[in-house]
Amino acid sequence: MAVPLSSAKFHTSILTQSLPSSSSRSFSVGKRFCCSSSSTSMEHHESKFKEFPYASVPHRELMVELVSTVENRLGESLLPCTLPSHVQYFENESATAHASLYVRSGNSSSQVDFILGSWVHCNLPTGGALNITSLSVYLRPSTDAPNFLIEVIQSSPTTLILILDLPPRKDLVQHPDYLKTFYEETQLDKQRQLLEKLPEVKPYFSSSLYIRALVSPSAILVSIETDPSQAIRIDEIIQDHISPVAKVMLDTWLNLCACTERRLTDDESKDLAKRDQIIKNKTIEIDLESSFPRLFGQQVANQVLGVLREIYNS
Amino acid sequence: MAVPLSSAKFHTSILTQSLPSSSSRSFSVGKRFCCSSSSTSMEHHESKFKEFPYASVPHRELMVELVSTVENRLGESLLPCTLPSHVQYFENESATAHASLYVRSGNSSSQVDFILGSWVHCNLPTGGALNITSLSVYLRPSTDAPNFLIEVIQSSPTTLILILDLPPRKDLVQHPDYLKTFYEETQLDKQRQLLEKLPEVKPYFSSSLYIRALVSPSAILVSIETDPSQAIRIDEIIQDHISPVAKVMLDTWLNLCACTERRLTDDESKDLAKRDQIIKNKTIEIDLESSFPRLFGQQVANQVLGVLREIYNS
Repeated sequence: MAVPLSSAKFHTSILTQSLPSSSSRSFSVGKRFCCSSSSTSMEHHESKFKEFPYASVPHRELMVELVSTVENRLGESLLPCTLPSHVQYFENESATAHASLYVRSGNSSSQVDFILGSWVHCNLPTGGALNITSLSVYLRPSTDAPNFLIEVIQSSPTTLILILDLPPRKDLVQHPDYLKTFYEETQLDKQRQLLEKLPEVKPYFSSSLYIRALVSPSAILVSIETDPSQAIRIDEIIQDHISPVAKVMLDTWLNLCACTERRLTDDESKDLAKRDQIIKNKTIEIDLESSFPRLFGQQVANQVLGVLREIYNS
Repeated sequence: MAVPLSSAKFHTSILTQSLPSSSSRSFSVGKRFCCSSSSTSMEHHESKFKEFPYASVPHRELMVELVSTVENRLGESLLPCTLPSHVQYFENESATAHASLYVRSGNSSSQVDFILGSWVHCNLPTGGALNITSLSVYLRPSTDAPNFLIEVIQSSPTTLILILDLPPRKDLVQHPDYLKTFYEETQLDKQRQLLEKLPEVKPYFSSSLYIRALVSPSAILVSIETDPSQAIRIDEIIQDHISPVAKVMLDTWLNLCACTERRLTDDESKDLAKRDQIIKNKTIEIDLESSFPRLFGQQVANQVLGVLREIYNS
C-alpha cells in the first residue's frame, strides 16, 4: 500500500519539530548524491539496503528476517532490483540524512506488483537520530487480497513507533465477506492485542486521516516508550514481542494473500486497479512529497520521487 | 449509521461476562412487554424515552440536549414517532432489563432518513447496572454526507465508554475529497484530541472489526475509568469535557451534513443506497441480534427487531 516510507506524515511532529528547513540551501546533487563516488555498483547498494547500517541490532535483525522471508518465499517471481544507484542510496548535502531504497517488481505472471524496502537515517538537532525502516508489498489487480506493510520508526533509544498491517484493498464496509476472510478468520487482531498488553505500548494515531483510513481495523499502530534508564528494554520488546508478531502477520499474508489465487471478474479487477492507483498517488503525496525535500533537499527529493512515481504508475 | 444501540457488540465483554443466559427462560411477552398495562399512550412512551430514567444527571442532560438540538433544528421535516408502544418501551420477564426506543422519520422532502434514539438499562449480577444511551441519525441517498452517532455506555459509576462520530457513507480511501470536506476541513480530530488529553481517557477498541471499519478516522472511541473513590469525576468529565465535544460535533453535522444539499448523480445515489443498506443489515446483525435475545428474551427481541428491520429496510 500506502506508507512505504511514511517517515513524513507518520512522524510529522518529530520532523516538524526537529529538522531545520532545507529550502534555503543550495544542493549540488550531482556531486553529493551518493555515499561516495566509488559506490556505484548495484550489488553494493543492494547489500547496503540490507545492512540497515543505522538500526539497532534487534531492529536490523527483524527487518533482515522479514525481507529474506519475503524474497525466499516469492523466489524467482521477483525480478532483480533495477533502481538507479542514486536512488538505491542517497543523502543530503551535509550528510546528516541518509537513505536507501530497494524495489523488486514481480514478473509478469506474479500476483506481486512490487516490494519496496527502505531505510532513512537522519541526525536530529537535539543530538539524537531518527531511524526509519520499512517494507511494503503491493499486489496486482489480478488479486484483491490485502498488501503487506511494516514500518519501524525510532526517534530515540527509548521510543519507537510501529506500523504493521495487511492494508485492505477493498472498502470493508461494503465487503463484509472480505473482512471475514482476511481479518476475522485470520484472527489478526490477536496479534495487536498481544502488543497492547505491554505497559510501554500505547495506540498511535497518525496525524494523517488518510493514513488512518487506509489501514485495516486490526492494524497495529502503536507507540512504545520505555523508561530512559532502560534503553535496553526497547531492544527486548523488538526481539521478544514485535518480532514474533511481525512474523505471524507476514506468514499469514504470504500464505493467504501473496500465494493464493483469487478469481476476480474483469470489472472487479478494473475497480481494484483504480482504487490501488488512488492509494499510490495519495501515499506519495502525503508520505513523501512533504518530507523528502525537507530531509534531502528539493533536488535530491525530486530525482528520487520521480523514480518512485514511475514505479507507482507503471 | 450503524451502531444505533450498540449495547451489544460494543460491549460484548461486559454483556458476556455479566449477563445470565436467557435462552432457557420462557417469556410471556404479551403480558410483561410494557412497563405497566396502563402505559400505552404514545405520549407517555415518548416522554419516557426522553426521561432517560436510569442515567446519571449529567448523562441525562447531555442526551436530552442532543435530542432536543436535533429535533429543534430539523423541526417539521421530522414526522412524529409512530413506533408501537411495545417497542417504545419494553422489558424482560424478570424486569431486570428495560429499554426504550424512539424513531422519527424524515418527511419525503427531507435529507433525513430517520433518527433513532434509545436507552437500555440492565441490572448486572454483580450488583451494578449497565446503562446505555444512544442517538443516531441516518441520512437518505439524496445526500452522501455522513450520518451522526453518539453512544454512551456506563457499566459502573466509575467507567464509561463513549462512541461519538460522523460515520462516513463513502469509502474514504477512494474519495479523498470527501475525507477533506467532512473530516479534515472540519478539524473534527481536534475534538478527539481534547478528550485524549484527559488522564482517565483511553482509546477503545470495539470487539467487532466491522464496527471499527464503519467509523471515521476521527471517530471518538474511548473508555474512561476513574478512581473508585472518585465516582463524581465521571460526572465532571461528562459535563465539562464530553458534553462540549458532543455539541461541537453535532453542530458540525447539522450545518454541514443534515442541512446542506449535495448534488449527486443517479448512479452515485444508487451506489450510496446499496452501501447504506449493507451497513443497516450488518448493524442489526452485529449490534442487536446477539444482545437483544440475551437481554430481553427471544420473544421480546424478535418483536422489537422485527419492527427495527422494517424501519431499516423501508
